[in-house]
Amino acid sequence: MEIQVLRNVFKRNDALADVTRGMLGEAGVIGFNIISSAGAGKTSLLEAILPMLGRSMRAAVLEGDIATTHDAERIAKVGARVLQLATEGGCHLSAALVHEAVKRLDLDRLDAVFVENVGNLVCPASFDIGEHVRIAALSFAEGDDKPAKYPLLFKTADLVVLTKSDLAEMCDFNPARAERFIRTVNPDVPVMLVSVRTGHGLDKLIDWVVRRVEATIPVGTAV
Amino acid sequence: MEIQVLRNVFKRNDALADVTRGMLGEAGVIGFNIISSAGAGKTSLLEAILPMLGRSMRAAVLEGDIATTHDAERIAKVGARVLQLATEGGCHLSAALVHEAVKRLDLDRLDAVFVENVGNLVCPASFDIGEHVRIAALSFAEGDDKPAKYPLLFKTADLVVLTKSDLAEMCDFNPARAERFIRTVNPDVPVMLVSVRTGHGLDKLIDWVVRRVEATIPVGTAV
Repeated sequence: MEIQVLRNVFKRNDALADVTRGMLGEAGVIGFNIISSAGAGKTSLLEAILPMLGRSMRAAVLEGDIATTHDAERIAKVGARVLQLATEGGCHLSAALVHEAVKRLDLDRLDAVFVENVGNLVCPASFDIGEHVRIAALSFAEGDDKPAKYPLLFKTADLVVLTKSDLAEMCDFNPARAERFIRTVNPDVPVMLVSVRTGHGLDKLIDWVVRRVEATIPVGTAV
Repeated sequence: MEIQVLRNVFKRNDALADVTRGMLGEAGVIGFNIISSAGAGKTSLLEAILPMLGRSMRAAVLEGDIATTHDAERIAKVGARVLQLATEGGCHLSAALVHEAVKRLDLDRLDAVFVENVGNLVCPASFDIGEHVRIAALSFAEGDDKPAKYPLLFKTADLVVLTKSDLAEMCDFNPARAERFIRTVNPDVPVMLVSVRTGHGLDKLIDWVVRRVEATIPVGTAV
């Protein structure tokens, strides 16, 4: 009985996610879903890359949070379009909430939408929100064994960013060990080391994002 | 309809949690529920304090994980009794799983049970597992604003441990700001700074735990 209800929830979520993905795709907009634990540095990553991405694309950000508008305020400060999505206690963003937000965006004036999910290494990985690209972030402070212990996110990611790489010595984080665990569940996913603090790896990350955006060919574009 | 089902789930969970709490209490055993994000250092805390607690009490550990037995292996190495609870994808420990585990413990030979919940700052906070004491952990690497953004855990905690305090300078974590956010939702909760790496604050944490265990007067004890 409970399982039935849960299945329906997933089915309805996934159907709405497909609608959102279609809306974005038709407008030639690529949707990114950024997932990590609380405090892995999702907002800091966006703060760092948005001004640099701004030269080559037009981006909007949807900030998912249980409470407060702290993150949306931070993103607004770097001059990006941002909407706050409040889950009000919910542990993940749903396709419905993201769909409502995407409807409010002027998609014709955008190339990319970055969705920052609720800080949680577990639940957001189970919910399709209509993204084209899923980015998993894991900070050096969290430990190199986390991809083994929380495999679903890393299995479903299109890119894994290992953040706060400047903490390497302080945290005994072995990137090779982390990568080995990641490759067990997702053999070909790119894995990048990044530190917003030192700037290490940001250029590579930006290149990757730009290439993904440029690879999106809007439906109806003359060739 | 869905809400109804969800309510029943919570109701059944809480009833079973009460049974577990009663079983523990009758045997004079105190149950601790340790909750934090993945990688905040729950296992490291236990590794550090269990050998020292071993002098004054008999403790067992229940290790909640989605996958792997890494943490149980680490705890076994310090000589503590440990059971691995596998949620197999589940984002939190349920009262049912903990209840089954507690039934397998020889409670007459124990003073305390430490349950390490699944690494998740959100969902475990909603589920009573039959603990007497809830400990929230938050690492300096996660950011001092997390108690405002993920309030439920901090609101329901009996103790908040700010871990990895040795990362203070590297992470721009302001403990006073974190404490201010914690006190907004839980005015009187004790807040402790700890670093397993340097040993800072461990003695204070151990004192607190020992006092809580000593304050548990077993039912039926002659006075």
